[in-house]
Amino acid sequence: MNQKFAINLFSLVLAALLFVPVSRAQEIQRPGGPKVVSPEIAADNSVTFRLYSENARSVEVNGSWMGMGEILQMKKGSDGIWTASTEVLEPSMYHYNFVLDGVSILDPRNPKAMRDGTRYASTLMVPGDASEVFQLNDVPHGSITKVWYDSPTLKLNRRMYVYTPPGYEDSKEKYPVLYLLHGGGGDEDAWTSLGRANYILDNLIAAGKARPMIVVMTNGNANQTASVTDWSKQPDPALNINPGSNRSEQEIMEGITAFPKSLVNDVVPYIESHFRVKSDSENRAIAGLSMGCMQTQIISMTNPGMFEYIGCFSLGIHFNDPFGVISNNILIPAYDKYLETMKNKVFYVGVGSEDFVYEGVQTLRKKLDEHNFKYIYNETGGGHTWANWRLYLSDFSPMLFK
Amino acid sequence: MNQKFAINLFSLVLAALLFVPVSRAQEIQRPGGPKVVSPEIAADNSVTFRLYSENARSVEVNGSWMGMGEILQMKKGSDGIWTASTEVLEPSMYHYNFVLDGVSILDPRNPKAMRDGTRYASTLMVPGDASEVFQLNDVPHGSITKVWYDSPTLKLNRRMYVYTPPGYEDSKEKYPVLYLLHGGGGDEDAWTSLGRANYILDNLIAAGKARPMIVVMTNGNANQTASVTDWSKQPDPALNINPGSNRSEQEIMEGITAFPKSLVNDVVPYIESHFRVKSDSENRAIAGLSMGCMQTQIISMTNPGMFEYIGCFSLGIHFNDPFGVISNNILIPAYDKYLETMKNKVFYVGVGSEDFVYEGVQTLRKKLDEHNFKYIYNETGGGHTWANWRLYLSDFSPMLFK
Repeated sequence: MNQKFAINLFSLVLAALLFVPVSRAQEIQRPGGPKVVSPEIAADNSVTFRLYSENARSVEVNGSWMGMGEILQMKKGSDGIWTASTEVLEPSMYHYNFVLDGVSILDPRNPKAMRDGTRYASTLMVPGDASEVFQLNDVPHGSITKVWYDSPTLKLNRRMYVYTPPGYEDSKEKYPVLYLLHGGGGDEDAWTSLGRANYILDNLIAAGKARPMIVVMTNGNANQTASVTDWSKQPDPALNINPGSNRSEQEIMEGITAFPKSLVNDVVPYIESHFRVKSDSENRAIAGLSMGCMQTQIISMTNPGMFEYIGCFSLGIHFNDPFGVISNNILIPAYDKYLETMKNKVFYVGVGSEDFVYEGVQTLRKKLDEHNFKYIYNETGGGHTWANWRLYLSDFSPMLFK
Repeated sequence: MNQKFAINLFSLVLAALLFVPVSRAQEIQRPGGPKVVSPEIAADNSVTFRLYSENARSVEVNGSWMGMGEILQMKKGSDGIWTASTEVLEPSMYHYNFVLDGVSILDPRNPKAMRDGTRYASTLMVPGDASEVFQLNDVPHGSITKVWYDSPTLKLNRRMYVYTPPGYEDSKEKYPVLYLLHGGGGDEDAWTSLGRANYILDNLIAAGKARPMIVVMTNGNANQTASVTDWSKQPDPALNINPGSNRSEQEIMEGITAFPKSLVNDVVPYIESHFRVKSDSENRAIAGLSMGCMQTQIISMTNPGMFEYIGCFSLGIHFNDPFGVISNNILIPAYDKYLETMKNKVFYVGVGSEDFVYEGVQTLRKKLDEHNFKYIYNETGGGHTWANWRLYLSDFSPMLFK
């Protein structure tokens, strides 16, 4: 103990090693320069961003609360610290990038970031009542399991995320299931990391607003085994379903219907044989956003009687895709047949008034109205954003299985 | 079908929406400028990095294959594209950042990135025999479940990751358990996202080299509920265990032993009551890297007879921490008592010859030798790196439960 206060270089290195993020010696470099705070949320919910760079020529902020083409210019102080502040922001979860000399980067001082497919952004949680539903609160939490399942339909072993509600492990009860599909560019990680679906369900279940349920989050890109972070090799381009890629109508039809078929043939049977679930239509729901809404429509309309609860977030019926394949060849005939005979306990349509798919959603509504088909319509402000998709899930999931 | 080839603006927007990553209209901005490829791995395993910026003053690459203080300068072409190439790299998983006008950023063209605690880096997989063990290969995959458990010891509800081996869901068998602890600055995500522990186990189990086992990956920061990405509020600083923070010896002792106590009192009982595990010492292993090795030593030495298999990666016994709390007050007395009576089937020590904890590991070896305690020693090249920790796990896990 005679070394009691002998804090030498080695002990500092050891302390650093044991108790704080390891530095350059081993892994990722700490950002240099002064320890600026960014983002800083003021009491009034305005936000200040800071970045230290002596050499940068220009720095901007590009955030999800901004309109199309808007940017926030940062200004450099004599200390080399670039600063910009927003107006007061509504409570929500936002994301943003700095644009440093034309390059889109993360805020190096913000430990919270998210991946949307192949791109990364820093995240920002503005507190308030509207944010409570997707916060990590002091309530019981469900589990998320990343499971691999065989898809004979797609000839791939694939990964999906399965949310099981609090208490699942300790009970013998069977649960209803929501199949929840992501949008274009996303993957099986999107609904939890961007959509906070697990915390939304935790909070709604704890409040007695939603019934305990299992939520299955698949990878809707038919040629992927898992999200890009985990690949060792590129997915097979033969399964590329992009209708703009000089494919025949037949090829596009096959591409577009591949994932919907695999969900019905491979995913649902896997879930119903590996989890304690109720496997009748009254206990099956399906919902998706954008591309996932297109898949939801194909799956639910071409499999009448399979899902009693259907949710379509931010997509409707469009006639303008190349060849008109999706709407003319699949959706319209399927809708006409379905709507003649089926009724759903819940058919939910959500869209933002500024979303560029807004008109297609109105076309879908006309189709439903023609058949006097009962549905719930939630038109919010805003566009094609996760802020809206979190909202629609929070709105839709309490309607399920009741 | 008369619109067959009428690809108008709207249809392009729709195609983009449905099938490729959504662009600015909704979420994260695409990087601007020419579509450069980065990183590009040549046939000889040299790697070329590219970044487009007309305005940057300087761009460097900082990679985990480099020595201390080394950097790779990128050069700007007349097209505004900065380029640099490495020498031939050994097969491994590396990470790197670009340093753009002094700011550490991700490679905007690389979709693969990882988080190490509060920092982000792009990742790079150089293929070859040595990389096979942590690649996503065509073998059966285990599941990873993110579960929340109560820790009365830490007065927190906390998250951990549990790997269950392929076939777990379909069998009634009971499995042995490896408790695998991360290092300073890491969290419950580190051993899978940086360490690729799940793929290492998948590959070794498929090859018949390791026995099917459960791997439990905890968050070793006693004041955290989960990784920083998921927090809604800051962890309680009262549970900060940094010995450099002007705390009394008693407070430091409590801080340092808090997580080890919770593992024994809370984690092990949770696992043994919620998963199908064999719960005798012959079927329990514990291993950790750096800070996690310190915790492994405290847990295993102060709970003799609990773990038959012990692994210490990149840490030994050091006497120079402030107050000498860890080694003088805990480790040395515990080792002396333990080594008098216990034997382990496997006691594994791994360290890199360039690691700054190298001398402390030699001190540990002397202590083991004094007692004629049998252990396995794996000295590799390199330093305090994930490249080494993946290697030690690949080496250690085949020795378990045999």
